[in-house]
Amino acid sequence: LDEPTGIRLIVAYDGAGFAGFQQQPRQRTVQGVLGEAIARMDGGEVEVRFASRTDAGVHAVGQIVAFDPTRGIEPYGWMRGLNGELPDDVAVRSAERCPRGYAPRFDATHKHYRYLVQVGAARDPLMRRSAWYLHPGMVPIARSRGNDDVRRWLDLAAMTEAAEALTGTHDFASFQAANDPREDTVRTMSAITCSPAWHDRPDLLALDVHGTAFLKNMVRILAGTLVEVGRGRATPTDVRALLAAKTRTEAGPTAPAHGLTLVSITLGR
Amino acid sequence: LDEPTGIRLIVAYDGAGFAGFQQQPRQRTVQGVLGEAIARMDGGEVEVRFASRTDAGVHAVGQIVAFDPTRGIEPYGWMRGLNGELPDDVAVRSAERCPRGYAPRFDATHKHYRYLVQVGAARDPLMRRSAWYLHPGMVPIARSRGNDDVRRWLDLAAMTEAAEALTGTHDFASFQAANDPREDTVRTMSAITCSPAWHDRPDLLALDVHGTAFLKNMVRILAGTLVEVGRGRATPTDVRALLAAKTRTEAGPTAPAHGLTLVSITLGR
Repeated sequence: LDEPTGIRLIVAYDGAGFAGFQQQPRQRTVQGVLGEAIARMDGGEVEVRFASRTDAGVHAVGQIVAFDPTRGIEPYGWMRGLNGELPDDVAVRSAERCPRGYAPRFDATHKHYRYLVQVGAARDPLMRRSAWYLHPGMVPIARSRGNDDVRRWLDLAAMTEAAEALTGTHDFASFQAANDPREDTVRTMSAITCSPAWHDRPDLLALDVHGTAFLKNMVRILAGTLVEVGRGRATPTDVRALLAAKTRTEAGPTAPAHGLTLVSITLGR
Repeated sequence: LDEPTGIRLIVAYDGAGFAGFQQQPRQRTVQGVLGEAIARMDGGEVEVRFASRTDAGVHAVGQIVAFDPTRGIEPYGWMRGLNGELPDDVAVRSAERCPRGYAPRFDATHKHYRYLVQVGAARDPLMRRSAWYLHPGMVPIARSRGNDDVRRWLDLAAMTEAAEALTGTHDFASFQAANDPREDTVRTMSAITCSPAWHDRPDLLALDVHGTAFLKNMVRILAGTLVEVGRGRATPTDVRALLAAKTRTEAGPTAPAHGLTLVSITLGR
């Protein structure tokens, strides 16, 4: 009998209940929860490989995961079975075959993250777990009063100019977590855009960041810095200088984790 | 000194943490939480009047509330102040003046409710608090397998035909909660529609119900009945017969509360 192939999954999760994706002792993690569900179906411990190490509190709709089962279950059977086993804050969106030993991390060529910002005089209670709410005290009164449209509330032209300055291949040392300095901090951002998230929700801004790979906290620091520009507390020129400075101490604040979602990962070279 | 005017608010809330809108002893209710926040700003107990009595678990983005303050605070000051006082699952979206003693319930001419359904092989963890998830076992295999588009998953043509049969002025006795029989059960639904909720989310169906007034649980029973039609377990003809039968025992199941949102209320005659 042939050995079963590997199985590759697209996984979605609500990050609020997890200490991040990657397994850690005595913490609830997405990798841990997935590993337990797969083990219950497969009959023993199984290594869960993944494409992207999302932080505590960060959501995903397009995380990629792979494992080598011992049982020859069809991909659709894995999806249905795992969705029956998993808690309601994680779900398998699709499943397909892949080679055994397949490592999504080394096959990921491109990642898309979306950071969601809500503005306006009132928090939206139904968006409080997935968007960073900017309260009126955070922007000049002339911009905030009686105006819940991000195009007026934040200076989107300045944010777009700063985002364009950050696009391309740069040393992003200024945009990595202070507690995790890496030696090689050159990364390529293929696109960074700022635009209203949905046509019927002018109070929601989407910061879409597309890149090949990211430093720790990088998307959240980019989002925090762009919001500083949108509020008028920094200029696109400041952002160019910051990139050139290559030091974390200069960048904007790290935007809160709950506004960030890993949207999709492109595989294959 | 003139007595302050009344204040009218548009209020949004996540229904999950509330035993419904209306105040009840020893229960956390939206009316209770609003009343406490207003009392903290106004210095004493204040009656909170409202337009629509939403059930436990039901959300709102457009509930209307009014009260008569003793302090002469500007409407915008009430909005900002209350949003500072309120817990993060309730927010005031706007505030304006109204006559003292104004009763939104008697001024409401039209209400729009939206019931959200998610279909597909996988639950969406980020929609689990605001949409009713229909799992693959609930629809015929030919419709569900490998297909996450509501237009294929549910029979939208049949649902639309049934929705049209329910539109207009009818005796809706078949569509009220069994435990709350009212004598006058004639209501007017001006429009009931079934359509994909957002163009980029084909797995989400919106059931939009517009009417002048509703019986207890009526929108959830309408949603449960329309889903039975969409699944092929009832026909539009069955729904017409059900309406004619005027007895609750015949209608579809009451759809779960967390899929329902009070979208807006039209005021003024």
